[in-house]
Amino acid sequence: VTSELAGRAPEATLRAPDLPPGLDTPALVIDLDIVERNARRLGDALARRGIALRPHAKTHKSLKLARVQLEAGADGITVGNLGEAEVFAAGGLDDLFIAYPVWAVGPKAARLRSLLDIQQLRLSVGFDSVAGAERLAAAAKGSQRPLRVVLELDPGNRRTGARPEQAGEIAAAGRRAGLDVLGVFTHGGHSYGQGLAAAAGADEVEALTIGAAALRAEGIEPQVVSAGSTPTELTAAVAPVNEIRAGTYLIGDRQQAIIGAVPLDGIAVAVAATVVSDAIDGQVVLDAGAKTLNKDVAPYLTGYGAIPAYPEAVIERVSDYHGVVRIPKGTRRPTVGEIVAIVPNHVCPVIDLRDSFIATRSGTIVGVWPVDARGRSG
Amino acid sequence: VTSELAGRAPEATLRAPDLPPGLDTPALVIDLDIVERNARRLGDALARRGIALRPHAKTHKSLKLARVQLEAGADGITVGNLGEAEVFAAGGLDDLFIAYPVWAVGPKAARLRSLLDIQQLRLSVGFDSVAGAERLAAAAKGSQRPLRVVLELDPGNRRTGARPEQAGEIAAAGRRAGLDVLGVFTHGGHSYGQGLAAAAGADEVEALTIGAAALRAEGIEPQVVSAGSTPTELTAAVAPVNEIRAGTYLIGDRQQAIIGAVPLDGIAVAVAATVVSDAIDGQVVLDAGAKTLNKDVAPYLTGYGAIPAYPEAVIERVSDYHGVVRIPKGTRRPTVGEIVAIVPNHVCPVIDLRDSFIATRSGTIVGVWPVDARGRSG
Repeated sequence: VTSELAGRAPEATLRAPDLPPGLDTPALVIDLDIVERNARRLGDALARRGIALRPHAKTHKSLKLARVQLEAGADGITVGNLGEAEVFAAGGLDDLFIAYPVWAVGPKAARLRSLLDIQQLRLSVGFDSVAGAERLAAAAKGSQRPLRVVLELDPGNRRTGARPEQAGEIAAAGRRAGLDVLGVFTHGGHSYGQGLAAAAGADEVEALTIGAAALRAEGIEPQVVSAGSTPTELTAAVAPVNEIRAGTYLIGDRQQAIIGAVPLDGIAVAVAATVVSDAIDGQVVLDAGAKTLNKDVAPYLTGYGAIPAYPEAVIERVSDYHGVVRIPKGTRRPTVGEIVAIVPNHVCPVIDLRDSFIATRSGTIVGVWPVDARGRSG
Repeated sequence: VTSELAGRAPEATLRAPDLPPGLDTPALVIDLDIVERNARRLGDALARRGIALRPHAKTHKSLKLARVQLEAGADGITVGNLGEAEVFAAGGLDDLFIAYPVWAVGPKAARLRSLLDIQQLRLSVGFDSVAGAERLAAAAKGSQRPLRVVLELDPGNRRTGARPEQAGEIAAAGRRAGLDVLGVFTHGGHSYGQGLAAAAGADEVEALTIGAAALRAEGIEPQVVSAGSTPTELTAAVAPVNEIRAGTYLIGDRQQAIIGAVPLDGIAVAVAATVVSDAIDGQVVLDAGAKTLNKDVAPYLTGYGAIPAYPEAVIERVSDYHGVVRIPKGTRRPTVGEIVAIVPNHVCPVIDLRDSFIATRSGTIVGVWPVDARGRSG
């Protein structure tokens, strides 16, 4: 009950972008006016602080949207794996950071080496252990330039990342192996929840401060001190941090809006779905199911997405091609054949399911844009 | 605690297919020996009962795997939407049933009409309301042959499907609208759980019995009386049912094995993932996250997939490219750089994330097979 109440009040104020008429559903719509506003909002805020922005492109996997970010002041692009780096490099982006501890053996070593050999590409890669650094160095051996790496530190997210206290030792081992150690980075993933952004941002700053000092103690002046997550995009944007790697801020989603990490009118994405059945009492069924909406949930969200035009409706169950929407007694419902706009819980995996999306401005189609790095997950 | 105990004993006996050496991870591996054994198991069992098999291809979305099913005795193929039907028709399959209440207006009406105009294609489509039937009839208007339709009935799954008692009235309206009403179908989706298959199968048979009688009372002799779900593939395979539409039986997954719907050695699929980090105590991190494993969970499963070689390990959290695996104290763990085989919780959405999979026989690669209908979700 708590989670339901927690979600309800702000959800009634969520806005989905306007849908163009005549869509073939399910469809993914992204409003470029809202995207550009979001891009400028963070770009301007970080520019005022003198902090670089290197947005994470795993959210959209789109070359065109990455260029929107660069035009709004981003200094480079972050990606999550070699596959995304390959697609963005082939598309002409020239400054990429793979924010992941790539384990560079076998096919991955060969692919990393091929990227390193692209002369116009400024590439850097994450690592979080001495063993990982040694594999990266072996993969880069014989290249005309050293591989640039950034050491991941754990700010309390407990996923990847070395303990900040170990930063000096691991960074020094990386340098001895022949790597160009640029600095340190964190991901404040423990910020995804209501009221967690301030503490998680402070955790990132603390871990990075310790790590940067540890590198200096080894004679490595950190050029990159990078924090990253949309909820901490501003709370972690203080010295010594000099780079922010937010991703979802560009498009927004239900999760980020409800926890306050993007404005309620900053949601640029909608899944358009048609009501295909009202055969069962108390519910309607949409043609957007798990293969469109994904199954991301959170304790502070009710169901598998929000339908702003019907704020009491709950997308209660999803199977591959069905979204079952419970209509509480006495509330309005969409009719069979009606197309509704759904705000997805988490936009990143939703975009990754589609080869393209419909780019709009205020409900008018301006193009069908490819999801260039769709399916690149390693 | 209950769900953890419930999952544990059988999971220790799960088997993943052997992985070929040298994989670039994350990778999806499907063992054709196991696939063919699964295909024959159900094909033979239904042949002995004189019941047709029309497997649901949304599980694999693969033309080659559909042909394996046809060679093992399947009589036609089921698909979940127009997009899948278009891909399978273009690939030369000539007998397709869209087991979905397609709402045939606008672009969907045009696409349905194009399929209907393929002379060599034997096509049928689901519906569950008079209004839906009228849209289908309007979409088919002017075609050289009537559109063949099958009425969906709800066996207690509470998703789509008319009440069995209404079958006569809705079927008669469909016939009056000019449709060729072939019969009735159900999906026993309420069978996905431990010990539910017998009751859900009986529910399907009961709903279909009522529906078939209601059609006869309107002078429509039902040619198709079709039940469908892997757990009920045998419990619903009794008169008057004359067709079964199981899907997951071909490949298996953790869910189906744990609830007993496929044999413990009938799992043909594994996600290969590399341990990329052990920086945090008590856990390791795999390069298979939510964009590879999906986020399907079930009350009777622990975590986001099983690792049969390390049965105590729990894939506790997934983010886009990270799978965080908790290693309980005192249990064995994979080492950094090691490649492990993961049995996914639910195979259908996992396959839909990839353009292709690695086809093997006992750990030897025999090909890279396309997921032809990947991303076709409407």
